[in-house]
Amino acid sequence: MRKREAKKEQILWAGLDLMKAHGYNGTSVKDIVDAAGVPKGSFYNYFDSKEAFATDALEAVAAEDERMTREMMASVGGSPLTQLRGYFALAADRFCDCDFRQGCFFGNMAQEMSDSNEVIRDAVGRIMRRKTASIGQLLEAAREAGEIRADADPMQLAEFVFNAWEGTLMRMKASRNREPLQAFLQTLPQILH
Amino acid sequence: MRKREAKKEQILWAGLDLMKAHGYNGTSVKDIVDAAGVPKGSFYNYFDSKEAFATDALEAVAAEDERMTREMMASVGGSPLTQLRGYFALAADRFCDCDFRQGCFFGNMAQEMSDSNEVIRDAVGRIMRRKTASIGQLLEAAREAGEIRADADPMQLAEFVFNAWEGTLMRMKASRNREPLQAFLQTLPQILH
Repeated sequence: MRKREAKKEQILWAGLDLMKAHGYNGTSVKDIVDAAGVPKGSFYNYFDSKEAFATDALEAVAAEDERMTREMMASVGGSPLTQLRGYFALAADRFCDCDFRQGCFFGNMAQEMSDSNEVIRDAVGRIMRRKTASIGQLLEAAREAGEIRADADPMQLAEFVFNAWEGTLMRMKASRNREPLQAFLQTLPQILH
Repeated sequence: MRKREAKKEQILWAGLDLMKAHGYNGTSVKDIVDAAGVPKGSFYNYFDSKEAFATDALEAVAAEDERMTREMMASVGGSPLTQLRGYFALAADRFCDCDFRQGCFFGNMAQEMSDSNEVIRDAVGRIMRRKTASIGQLLEAAREAGEIRADADPMQLAEFVFNAWEGTLMRMKASRNREPLQAFLQTLPQILH
């Protein structure tokens, strides 16, 4: 069982790198098994289809992302709003470090696959709702701490901030500079006050 | 010459519909000529390559978009800020009318192609800078009219607003409901004040 899990993880992360770089349609099952160094047949021992692979890949990235988010926020510390701003600044640095490539895997998959694959759209939508909800919880705490207006709607604000962030990452792919990020980080305090 | 232009337009718009729906990699030159009802060879009388087709397609959509934006704003009228808000509300209605599919062609191409094709990334970047600049001009006028803070930076605000809008359209593809739009329209006044 443990060995089986390890093999599955090996295929998953090898294929994930490809799918992050080339998208869903730009990545074949053959590309994935070649990258993982396993025979093609063994792919289907672990995944029913490329679609099933993609939803597992999305959840794996989401779990990794949630772990990193917790770590980032703990390392930043401070008030709820300080943590949230710190998170975006750190996440942005990570993105700039890889030469503004790739952007957000969830955003890329949403953009590429939402119209053509309901299962993947569902998986992306679920993950984005979780991410939005965790921003919403921080904003709720910020409101309780008096950091944002008492009449603010934390969940609606979280929806806006998350989407603006996704748009910022997408724009950085196109502009390949920090301007979209500067605009995001400097406008954020005007929204969250 | 006129006939030549008409034939080129015919291929352009037929292929554009496909590329909007299936992306760059999901659309072949054969798909385009089949949709346009012309022989494959004639494609290359008008476009050097699929890449050249895509940049022409992007500019054609941008020109159409600029025309519609002017019309929308003229139909809304009023102060600069009223026009800008009206524009987003109208543009959103158009998007909701097509069942939240497709999103923004520029955003989709940026997401799909920025990492793999420099010519297309350049074309998308140029168009996005133009769109951002026209939002910036409206915000500049809004500042002069005393509608937004005197110390606001119209161009940076425009960059933020445009990217947030792109993120909102992307999110609507994944959620297929109006929530991202509501969050955008209701948060906008808090930024532009």
